[in-house]
Amino acid sequence: MTDNVRIALDAMGGDHGPAVVAAGAAIALKRRPDLSFVFVGDESLVAPQLDAHPALKAVSEIRHTDVAVRMDDKPSVALRKGRYKSSMWLALEAVKDGSAHAAVSAGNTGALMAMSRFCLRMMADVERPAIAAMWPTLRGESIVLDVGATIGADARQLVDFAVMGSAMARILFDIERPTVGLLNVGVEEIKGVEQVKEAARLLREDPFPSIDFRGFVEGDDLGKGTVDVVVTEGFAGNIALKTAEGTARQLASYLRSAMGRTWLSKLGYLLARSAFDTLKEKMDPSKVNGGVFLGLEGVVIKSHGGADAEGFASAVEVGYEMARYDLISKIRQGMAHESDGPYVADAAGAEMQRLAGATP
Amino acid sequence: MTDNVRIALDAMGGDHGPAVVAAGAAIALKRRPDLSFVFVGDESLVAPQLDAHPALKAVSEIRHTDVAVRMDDKPSVALRKGRYKSSMWLALEAVKDGSAHAAVSAGNTGALMAMSRFCLRMMADVERPAIAAMWPTLRGESIVLDVGATIGADARQLVDFAVMGSAMARILFDIERPTVGLLNVGVEEIKGVEQVKEAARLLREDPFPSIDFRGFVEGDDLGKGTVDVVVTEGFAGNIALKTAEGTARQLASYLRSAMGRTWLSKLGYLLARSAFDTLKEKMDPSKVNGGVFLGLEGVVIKSHGGADAEGFASAVEVGYEMARYDLISKIRQGMAHESDGPYVADAAGAEMQRLAGATP
Repeated sequence: MTDNVRIALDAMGGDHGPAVVAAGAAIALKRRPDLSFVFVGDESLVAPQLDAHPALKAVSEIRHTDVAVRMDDKPSVALRKGRYKSSMWLALEAVKDGSAHAAVSAGNTGALMAMSRFCLRMMADVERPAIAAMWPTLRGESIVLDVGATIGADARQLVDFAVMGSAMARILFDIERPTVGLLNVGVEEIKGVEQVKEAARLLREDPFPSIDFRGFVEGDDLGKGTVDVVVTEGFAGNIALKTAEGTARQLASYLRSAMGRTWLSKLGYLLARSAFDTLKEKMDPSKVNGGVFLGLEGVVIKSHGGADAEGFASAVEVGYEMARYDLISKIRQGMAHESDGPYVADAAGAEMQRLAGATP
Repeated sequence: MTDNVRIALDAMGGDHGPAVVAAGAAIALKRRPDLSFVFVGDESLVAPQLDAHPALKAVSEIRHTDVAVRMDDKPSVALRKGRYKSSMWLALEAVKDGSAHAAVSAGNTGALMAMSRFCLRMMADVERPAIAAMWPTLRGESIVLDVGATIGADARQLVDFAVMGSAMARILFDIERPTVGLLNVGVEEIKGVEQVKEAARLLREDPFPSIDFRGFVEGDDLGKGTVDVVVTEGFAGNIALKTAEGTARQLASYLRSAMGRTWLSKLGYLLARSAFDTLKEKMDPSKVNGGVFLGLEGVVIKSHGGADAEGFASAVEVGYEMARYDLISKIRQGMAHESDGPYVADAAGAEMQRLAGATP
């Protein structure tokens, strides 16, 4: 990795387009001065946004295209219309040709995943991609994957998810052996589907030096932060993610209506304002924005389509971290088994050396 | 149904045993004076509890047994040790032999389901049982099933769940044609597993007069209350339920710590006390306690193991409603298809007549 982390941005993605993408990049740049950017999109729309952020403009180039994938395009349509020429595709291609270290898009998830697989290709040892989400917990944050890249996963693929999620956790949480749990249900004896039970067996019998496997976790362990990495297939993962988001919105709505009911509660709200601001911050999804696509030969980050500038900046910074600390190599290293030989000492040594050199 | 609704209670189930079971029954009795009870359990422990509630004692009998299923017994162990003699089994048997209209237990879910299937048997047309949970939403309540009776379900079984959940919704929400959605994920083109897509096709092409089918819903529709009945298989349903519970606890914990941080926020909390009490009530899981076992030849209600007296009373009242308005017949009626002939008029007529007679 060079001194500089260069991010390709799909400037046309998301509900708000270039204005939020540029504003978000400007925020990220303030916090990470070694960032630079490739903006891909309609130059007539992007250039004025960069003019509004001179510091950003100084470290950015624009690659023009007037083709943009729409938020409601199906993946197949997006591929047909947008391959080789859309802002989304060209942002990925910048990663592929080495002119950027990561791509960030707030465009539609299905299209971005389809194009990523097509443009960047899967890693040799990985069968299925996964989308990893950062999940706010009572202990900080966890990583949950897959939250919807594909549906269903066999035991081997779940194990791959565990390895990939752990590699991501090592970077984000700066821990050597992240704790990993497999999402399951708590009904005795019919405990879990075969694939989940088999994945647990594989992780126990042929352990990975980079994973501290803790067995099964349940839905309520997500909010507790019982483990650093929660592994599940995309159907259950997507439902868990959306259920948690929905529950948070539901409770926020109860809270709002409860606080506005009487003049006394309104006064109480005013006095407790800073506490509510803290709470709002805790519940703010933009603070943990940035789904990481795992299993690809390149770093791709998906921002929420509706993210504001602060949210988009979070996604950019996730891309920064993943590129700076070399997610792809960490996944490759992570694939090594305990049984493959003396990984721990060697890899840890190389790791520390590399980290020492790479830290900004 | 007689004038009186008689409930068999597993007095030894749950974390707190007879004390909470009796106190809960006493609360339910105050609200539903036409209740009576069969307490099944250790008489030396149950009798003193009834002595403490004279009104309850007057409408209750005790059936003694000194065998109790433990909260951590596996279903197979519970069956082996507790069949024909445990308090859980004998409560179910009271439903089977007609001496009670419903059974309520706070004992362990797996054991209760295994014993229910063994003792009461499945309904003739239903292949799999389901556990239906009541889910608090922004619009009131919805029913979500299956939340963990079994894992996986084919299209036909999902359709059965839709029919059974609708029958329950007709009773609880007093609506003729409940809206029903199939839980799915929002990833285009790979949308959902085959079984879910096939179930949607079945519900569309050969509709049930008692169901207003609305297609797919996602995880965040649960909290919104988009439909009256959300149908899914037990793995995803259990994970959704526990994730929502975990998220609610997580946010309550954030709120508590935010409100206690400064003297100003503490003062604000005092002033807004009634608002917080309202919120607490909204978030109180005991208010919606009572999972309904569906697909069996009898009404069985599972209370949370940790429920307090108020929570156990809710479960008893759910049992009361299901027995009083004849859940089992409603499920049988619900199985009739649009294509089976003029169900609507006849059934609705009979229904209204029956309801008019049965309403307490």
